[in-house]
Amino acid sequence: MKQLEEAILKYGSAINEQVLKVDTFLNHQIDPNLMYLMAADILEHFKDKKIDKIITIEASGIAPALMVAYQLNVPLVFFKKATSSILNEELYQCQVHSFTKNKDYTLTASKNYIHEGEKLLFVDDFLANGEAALGAINIVKQANAEISGIAIIIEKSFQPGRERLTAEGYDVYSLARIKQMAANHIEFIKNE
Amino acid sequence: MKQLEEAILKYGSAINEQVLKVDTFLNHQIDPNLMYLMAADILEHFKDKKIDKIITIEASGIAPALMVAYQLNVPLVFFKKATSSILNEELYQCQVHSFTKNKDYTLTASKNYIHEGEKLLFVDDFLANGEAALGAINIVKQANAEISGIAIIIEKSFQPGRERLTAEGYDVYSLARIKQMAANHIEFIKNE
Repeated sequence: MKQLEEAILKYGSAINEQVLKVDTFLNHQIDPNLMYLMAADILEHFKDKKIDKIITIEASGIAPALMVAYQLNVPLVFFKKATSSILNEELYQCQVHSFTKNKDYTLTASKNYIHEGEKLLFVDDFLANGEAALGAINIVKQANAEISGIAIIIEKSFQPGRERLTAEGYDVYSLARIKQMAANHIEFIKNE
Repeated sequence: MKQLEEAILKYGSAINEQVLKVDTFLNHQIDPNLMYLMAADILEHFKDKKIDKIITIEASGIAPALMVAYQLNVPLVFFKKATSSILNEELYQCQVHSFTKNKDYTLTASKNYIHEGEKLLFVDDFLANGEAALGAINIVKQANAEISGIAIIIEKSFQPGRERLTAEGYDVYSLARIKQMAANHIEFIKNE
């Protein structure tokens, strides 16, 4: 998506070959209009899919996922990274390893909000190794629900996340795909 | 706000005199249309204030705050509850005690996104003891920025948060104000 690639080049910065800093518009400060445009682009890609709900993971996934849910007029469920004292009913859980933070967390969703047979679009800010997406898919499978597709804002295409997800048959749509990067250099893969 | 009070009565549940569960539409599953309407109501209240940016705290504050930022067409900055390896520049920080979770966290914001003289509207999902709001205000003061107002989705009016904030001169606008509650009983204070 052209506007996103331009924002990454203008406001983002590659710290090194692995870490892309986009907290000017995506995961600390947020540009709400860019979020709206990205959501519209995601929904155009998945327009032939039936989607009952949007799912994402706190915290950085919430903003883009909310804009998708708002435009499609369906609920959003955000999965949590730790159990809360408020979440006292039965839970779906899955252990997820974060390579960025080099630690594990327990991805958690209440059984009240994911139901058998529901068709879910997973939206997240980053796809790298695919651990978070695979954790979310694990929870969706526990609920006997279905994944309609996987929408990603920024894909690090030099890491294996996309490959792991497409190997399982999922439709992965990423708004920006980074082929490679290094300090002050970012190269995109063009979507067909 | 009528639609919110109706949603609290229909979908929320008071676990006891302190804990209100609203994860059906506010802080686990999200109703995006209700978020949109709540944001419009907040902006109507603050329509005479100059607002340069919206600020909130991850994770549950992001959805309502994003809708406010989207409608006002200004950036949103969400403060973080822990430092990330990505946030490597200079930071504003403030220790905050969460009574809900009975633990402390370090509220954190990059110095890049809050600037001297900026007028900021703080939006959050809950106001109880006011610890989170006071932490956010502390960071805003560190930056020599200003608080235009404080917008809250649900205020537990039987706890001292509002009083602590209004005592410092802040305009606190809460969409629903809970006078008291108990298992299966919720009573509101009507806004004039």
